[in-house]
Amino acid sequence: KNIVQMIPKVIFVLSLYRSAYAFCPPNVMGSNIQRLKLGTPSTPLCYRRTRPRIGMSDGTRLVPSLNNSLVEVGCDNAKKDFLVYEHMLGVISNHAASSGKLGSITLVGAGPGDPDLLTLGALKAIHAADLVIADRLVSKEILALIKSELKIAQKYPGCAHDAQNEIYRWCAEGLVEGKKIVRLKIGDPFVFGRGGEEVLELRKFGVEAKVIPGISSALAGPLAAGIPVTHRGVANRVVFCTGMGKEESIPDIPAYHPEQTCVFLMAVGRLKALTDDLTKGGYPSTTPVGIIERATTPHERTIRGTIEDIVILASEEKIRPPSVIVVGEAVNVLSKQEKHHQTIIPFRRSAMSLESLSKACEPSGE
Amino acid sequence: KNIVQMIPKVIFVLSLYRSAYAFCPPNVMGSNIQRLKLGTPSTPLCYRRTRPRIGMSDGTRLVPSLNNSLVEVGCDNAKKDFLVYEHMLGVISNHAASSGKLGSITLVGAGPGDPDLLTLGALKAIHAADLVIADRLVSKEILALIKSELKIAQKYPGCAHDAQNEIYRWCAEGLVEGKKIVRLKIGDPFVFGRGGEEVLELRKFGVEAKVIPGISSALAGPLAAGIPVTHRGVANRVVFCTGMGKEESIPDIPAYHPEQTCVFLMAVGRLKALTDDLTKGGYPSTTPVGIIERATTPHERTIRGTIEDIVILASEEKIRPPSVIVVGEAVNVLSKQEKHHQTIIPFRRSAMSLESLSKACEPSGE
Repeated sequence: KNIVQMIPKVIFVLSLYRSAYAFCPPNVMGSNIQRLKLGTPSTPLCYRRTRPRIGMSDGTRLVPSLNNSLVEVGCDNAKKDFLVYEHMLGVISNHAASSGKLGSITLVGAGPGDPDLLTLGALKAIHAADLVIADRLVSKEILALIKSELKIAQKYPGCAHDAQNEIYRWCAEGLVEGKKIVRLKIGDPFVFGRGGEEVLELRKFGVEAKVIPGISSALAGPLAAGIPVTHRGVANRVVFCTGMGKEESIPDIPAYHPEQTCVFLMAVGRLKALTDDLTKGGYPSTTPVGIIERATTPHERTIRGTIEDIVILASEEKIRPPSVIVVGEAVNVLSKQEKHHQTIIPFRRSAMSLESLSKACEPSGE
Repeated sequence: KNIVQMIPKVIFVLSLYRSAYAFCPPNVMGSNIQRLKLGTPSTPLCYRRTRPRIGMSDGTRLVPSLNNSLVEVGCDNAKKDFLVYEHMLGVISNHAASSGKLGSITLVGAGPGDPDLLTLGALKAIHAADLVIADRLVSKEILALIKSELKIAQKYPGCAHDAQNEIYRWCAEGLVEGKKIVRLKIGDPFVFGRGGEEVLELRKFGVEAKVIPGISSALAGPLAAGIPVTHRGVANRVVFCTGMGKEESIPDIPAYHPEQTCVFLMAVGRLKALTDDLTKGGYPSTTPVGIIERATTPHERTIRGTIEDIVILASEEKIRPPSVIVVGEAVNVLSKQEKHHQTIIPFRRSAMSLESLSKACEPSGE
């Protein structure tokens, strides 16, 4: 009975599917439609479908590939849409490059969040851009400086790892439109930010990205809490580690050295496991640990303890991500408190407004 | 005969020495002269002389300490002058603090040299300062942005380690004069920059320094050469090491790990010893090594090799300080060259001038 009721719907859907080929949007770049090549991130290096899909959204455009074939890009409803496989985008931009229409792309480090920690180079790049594609975590104060077209990477519930592919698609679209694109990344593009991966991906589009460094929260986090990651006679080297490796693996702990500072990013969610690893790795239980929550924001907090008690302290203080964890004697080298933990030293922003900064930009020697 | 000839000179000098007491410069801050307390860096915690010296230069001023004693500061001819012992400056500024006249001091990271890598916060601080005390290696392009009084730390031949004491003296002078001081340091103040030491020293003056982070050449150097210090699946941690520890000691090499990038600063002068240490430390001889000379300047150069051959390559190419040495698989992750070494990828400056940046600083939302 149920199957019988479904038959008309199946026929209707099939006919819609067929007619969609007739309603295919007009070719936007002058070549004849031969076929559509679509893929999804789960079907690499093969073409999953050769016809236009039903439900193609208004934002969808068809861009010519080599041999007059077309590729769908720029769907508005990216959440539901098929993602164009990155290899296809490489073909697109090679094509666009041969017509001399390809744009440019600059990976720009936005720093940890405070707009005062943006570099002049970053601000100039943002100002010169036609399109800014920003990480989801770039602060709203920095986003407020952007006057060009702005796209913000989203993590949709249930398809979080499509976000990176969506970024690549936006990049490819902007490139074939000849736009100056800024890819605005938090922190420093080359420190735990997939910056290198994006450079490699963009090369497939026929583009060599420029890169502008940014202040890494691995440095600015400890600094904001008054912790110098190096200090002569106390710490003569510093290790930056991620709490999360490729495919969510947990990287090894650095070998213990008494004159070494360890900075862990993205690890506060597994603080207990981390302190266990440190103890197993030969770190004395009395080694100082500092955790800086939401570094360089107005809500910044710091707690200090040791490998032995930091888990309890962090639990008591309800420390949450994003947080930077610092391990080593340098944690207390400038610290004056007697008590074991303390919320101290908010980051000192300069009082001067951005408007009055324009004066500071006037050339000197007047 | 010689001794006899010298006697009149000795008498003349002694009489000059006595009379200098009478010619002591007038008290600049209202207390009566009781005695002068002077020390040198080599006579800590004791007062070496209690009378004014002969040959006190025009720039020399006397500043009251506690108990109406006076301390000499601000000699123009610092090269020859006694340096006021830092402890004395602490007394000075405690005194000044009690009269509510003490200035403020901000340690500011100037980045590796390119003015585009200055942060907005750094530029604001420089603009708001009454006095900027800059490291000797701060680039002339950044110095050109300074409109206030500027003092540049000098390393005089033969008394190089007095430079830091001279900086402290300048700080103390500026503080008692109530000035807003920016202590402009290369790179990041808390990464191999003695920033922590300066914070502790300034506390002796009764002042808590503010700190603004900067782009460290440990990050910007590799980035400028197209080397991401972390890269998923290749390097999940990065170690910053100095080639020079406290009292010119040579710090230990970090333990080898295949997914680790090592960045060595101030080590190119002992490259041979470093590669020997790495080999002894279990680093495979095929581990890639990159050296970036004068990173982020127009003269930037990069060479690439391995632990085995980098010493010869560096010698052939005549690599000189300042250079950043990067060791690990990440060195080649974005590198496309077939040849073993290559001078590649100059840092891409933004074309926009600082003047036109003022537009970028206008608030958005118009």
